[in-house]
Amino acid sequence: MQIYTAPLRDMRFVLNELHTDDGFGDIPALADFTPDLTEAVLSEAAKLCQDVLLPLNRSGDEEGCTLENGVVRTPKGFIEAYKAFTEGGWNALVLPPEWGGQGAPEAVGKLVEEMICATNVSFSLYPGLTNGAIAALTVYANDTLKQEYLPKMVSGEWSGTMCLTEPHCGTDLGLLRTRAEPGEDGSYKLSGAKIFISAGEHDLTTNIVHLVLARLPDAPKGVKGISLFLVPKYLPDADGNPSVRNGARCTAIEHKMGLKASATCQMLFEDAKGWLVGEPHRGLEAMFTMMNAERVGVGIQGLGIGEAAYQSAVWYAKDRLQGRSLSGTKHPDKPADPIIVHPDVRRMLLTMRAWNEGCRGVSAWVARALDAEKHGAEPEQRQRASDFVALMTPVVKAMFTDLGLESASLAVQCYGGHGFIRESGVEQYMRDARIAMLYEGTNGIQALDLVGRKLPAEMGRYLRSFFHPVSDFIDANLEDPAIGKMVAGLKRAFEALQGATAIIAERGMKDPEEGGAAATDYLRLMGLVAMAYCFAKATKLASRELMSGTGEAAFYKAKIDTARFFYEKLLPQSASLYLAIKAGKGSVMDFAEEAF
Amino acid sequence: MQIYTAPLRDMRFVLNELHTDDGFGDIPALADFTPDLTEAVLSEAAKLCQDVLLPLNRSGDEEGCTLENGVVRTPKGFIEAYKAFTEGGWNALVLPPEWGGQGAPEAVGKLVEEMICATNVSFSLYPGLTNGAIAALTVYANDTLKQEYLPKMVSGEWSGTMCLTEPHCGTDLGLLRTRAEPGEDGSYKLSGAKIFISAGEHDLTTNIVHLVLARLPDAPKGVKGISLFLVPKYLPDADGNPSVRNGARCTAIEHKMGLKASATCQMLFEDAKGWLVGEPHRGLEAMFTMMNAERVGVGIQGLGIGEAAYQSAVWYAKDRLQGRSLSGTKHPDKPADPIIVHPDVRRMLLTMRAWNEGCRGVSAWVARALDAEKHGAEPEQRQRASDFVALMTPVVKAMFTDLGLESASLAVQCYGGHGFIRESGVEQYMRDARIAMLYEGTNGIQALDLVGRKLPAEMGRYLRSFFHPVSDFIDANLEDPAIGKMVAGLKRAFEALQGATAIIAERGMKDPEEGGAAATDYLRLMGLVAMAYCFAKATKLASRELMSGTGEAAFYKAKIDTARFFYEKLLPQSASLYLAIKAGKGSVMDFAEEAF
Repeated sequence: MQIYTAPLRDMRFVLNELHTDDGFGDIPALADFTPDLTEAVLSEAAKLCQDVLLPLNRSGDEEGCTLENGVVRTPKGFIEAYKAFTEGGWNALVLPPEWGGQGAPEAVGKLVEEMICATNVSFSLYPGLTNGAIAALTVYANDTLKQEYLPKMVSGEWSGTMCLTEPHCGTDLGLLRTRAEPGEDGSYKLSGAKIFISAGEHDLTTNIVHLVLARLPDAPKGVKGISLFLVPKYLPDADGNPSVRNGARCTAIEHKMGLKASATCQMLFEDAKGWLVGEPHRGLEAMFTMMNAERVGVGIQGLGIGEAAYQSAVWYAKDRLQGRSLSGTKHPDKPADPIIVHPDVRRMLLTMRAWNEGCRGVSAWVARALDAEKHGAEPEQRQRASDFVALMTPVVKAMFTDLGLESASLAVQCYGGHGFIRESGVEQYMRDARIAMLYEGTNGIQALDLVGRKLPAEMGRYLRSFFHPVSDFIDANLEDPAIGKMVAGLKRAFEALQGATAIIAERGMKDPEEGGAAATDYLRLMGLVAMAYCFAKATKLASRELMSGTGEAAFYKAKIDTARFFYEKLLPQSASLYLAIKAGKGSVMDFAEEAF
Repeated sequence: MQIYTAPLRDMRFVLNELHTDDGFGDIPALADFTPDLTEAVLSEAAKLCQDVLLPLNRSGDEEGCTLENGVVRTPKGFIEAYKAFTEGGWNALVLPPEWGGQGAPEAVGKLVEEMICATNVSFSLYPGLTNGAIAALTVYANDTLKQEYLPKMVSGEWSGTMCLTEPHCGTDLGLLRTRAEPGEDGSYKLSGAKIFISAGEHDLTTNIVHLVLARLPDAPKGVKGISLFLVPKYLPDADGNPSVRNGARCTAIEHKMGLKASATCQMLFEDAKGWLVGEPHRGLEAMFTMMNAERVGVGIQGLGIGEAAYQSAVWYAKDRLQGRSLSGTKHPDKPADPIIVHPDVRRMLLTMRAWNEGCRGVSAWVARALDAEKHGAEPEQRQRASDFVALMTPVVKAMFTDLGLESASLAVQCYGGHGFIRESGVEQYMRDARIAMLYEGTNGIQALDLVGRKLPAEMGRYLRSFFHPVSDFIDANLEDPAIGKMVAGLKRAFEALQGATAIIAERGMKDPEEGGAAATDYLRLMGLVAMAYCFAKATKLASRELMSGTGEAAFYKAKIDTARFFYEKLLPQSASLYLAIKAGKGSVMDFAEEAF
């Protein structure tokens, strides 16, 4: 059964309690968003997600999208849900007020995103990609394009896409072939085929605005010859309303493992009219503006699905009667005890829970940095926030999505054979979670980005935005009677991360393959330390609350107990990751290609 | 693309080279199966699997099974494939010659099973369950039933099922409700509903023989009141041919995540005529005879899919051009290098490869023990073999199936976004692999079986059948110049396993939940050590072959290089598993049930 109630209390915890000392808070530009308002926003979002999106999740998976005569139909109920979504302004929550958005902090927006992804990740892609396109247009488009397109995209009347991938090139965009010929009126004619275009065609909006990577006739080879174009499905008339159909059409929709209610389109551009966005040959830069924002969002998909999987598994573990507790019958009145009495079932539930709380703690931190990067009062604060976002984006994208699949698979395991049956709803979480490890840059690419670009950047300055607070926290709390033992565990893991960093920095300088071979293990190690830091901070706060006799003893006690599980059962993975990194690239690269 | 060529050279290696000193070999009863004959058997099996079963794998997944008016139809081509399969005698390869089987060693049979599962795991369940039923009947049925049913089941003319699960009970069979009323002619009338019955109904055979767990009217409560019955779909007439339709019918087939070409049936028994198999109230014992044999087979499913996933990923990694090698362009003539040049892609391929070779090494060892258990010349040999099989069965079932999913997921990852598309074929491996972690006892149940039953059994005698050879090998080879360093790694992992065993034995004596909380980690640790032992032995053999100037240098070099990868990148997991086990049950069991 797909169960979901937004974890509002934990969301308030990571939003208002956990990170208040991170130096990213108290941003004047966001002062309107008081805790009261934020609370109301989160509650309303929870209602919409639980009442409107969740009921369409299973049916959307079963029904999927259809393509007939060039028209893509979304599953039953999606049109109405999209209407409710945009009428409530949810698509524009964090968008700039100057274009009609509500300007809410990312720290709030990411929590709402988590709810949306938890209840219907397929649905999330329709507004999600639009937001990416808006981000690129806001920065790079000229005023005419902005005036013509942004208001309608921000309102949700029109949607957006990102058209990067071609059949022969995904990761390596330098190979792309779509061409743009200059027209006489300052526009361009685009021709080429794109694949994997989420929301490339659908029936939710009256127009679709494609952002397309293509080459100009005089383009240099490789990634330095790629430009970005805006190509609408319908060309707007003088009043800005959709009129003439443009030469951009959907030729097929993909048959996928999951995410079936999201239309993944093959698009054909045939002399499609478009306009340049930003400078010629600088399209990749603009696209990466979009992409980086999207990557944090994709990480949130992993967390959202992980939370939904966890809740669905808890429900089942309390409901399903099977066997008796090893420590003696717990429910003599029932034919058997609920399976939540069994240690191995609890291990699975707590693993999911710890991953989810760990991810939420880290993403809330990154989201605050996103706000500080945009709105921070001081240049130093903005710089530090920007460094931290840059460093953590690949970690959030890759680790959260890996864990989303792991949690979904654990939920299936809790259901036993029933988990394999579609009606249980949990196998869908596995299928839907799987894509997030692949799109917006595979998780291997994220790891390379972390090790190859982010670590060496600015002589390690990005890294210091993370290492300094962790190191300071360890120094300040190692002797703390309440959390000293936990902090000693954090110190060990942090030392492993520092050691791994030194190894990669030293060896990688001479040989980039050393970094490449260590990258995935290193990213996971960094993510574990980031979570461990959040859990230790949470335990400190929770211990203080318990001592002060809070009225929420159960909540804070559970915080501490989840952190304990993380430290005792999951953080030890840092030991083996360090050993694997230390072993170096030899066993990976010496293996003869013919021998595979 | 689903690619598969049976790894015949590696199969010969684990069959004829790796385990010759294990004390299970040279069984007179199996002397007919010379290396030449075995070689021919494996080659022929490979042909059938590659040419007949593999082409039906994707189409079977797309088409699935259908139920109409009580009739289940398998996907197109399955009837013909089953005919070819049984005409070739493949279903009866390891079955007893007295009933028409070929009496091949399990050591050969498991390799053929691996090929079948690699090419079409859905198909494997039709003959697979029949073999389980034959195993139970051979031991427990009376002569009349044997004469009437076994020849037709061994020939494959009729198939078999195992009817255990009911909607409210899977793991906890003590709860089952299906009832059997004694009739006047020594038969029984069975009534009740069963679910998850693989091959419960289909169009491949003229009759289906259900082995059904049910309660007699005078049955004690719980698992000690369960009896086993044989219930045919059609009652045989005086000549043994199917005649009157029995009251056993399929009411629905499940919609599943994967394994779609296998009909998973809901069965309704309404006054169905059946016969007791074995003693009244001792049905579980008989069923576990079947179940234990099946569990090794389910482990092999994980290995088979893991191998197919690996080969499909290697093909893609050599074919797909994307990016350039970090150490400089490798193929300047091409627009990009194949992705196999990238360290992270190699990490994924080698992880799959190492898991597969590790599993194959361990399963070949267990298969030899299966033969020695049945046919060993000396009682001591049979006992030791039986101990080893009992100990390793849960490890093979759980660890291999976990790794099957991991390898399938890694293959998807190698394909990037294309891996999520059904046409790629690799996402099917993930969906098909997922069930094996659930059926025939979830992997959590396997871990409990290992820790709760197998470890303490006979004062640790089962365990010694594994610990002694490993310990002897370490002592004998620690100073070996060729493999001493690797053996030191084996020693560390083995010490972690011994330490974990002592912890569980000591704490578990007072508190079974301690064993329960450590079980899954412990099982994985034992599996890692078993693989590490096989890899070290393989390296020793391979080093000797290389020194002697074998003509197969590439094969033996790859053996050593895969072992090195395993030791450097995967075996370190043993360190974190030990730490998690050592931390004990506290964090798992103290967590308040209400707080989940």
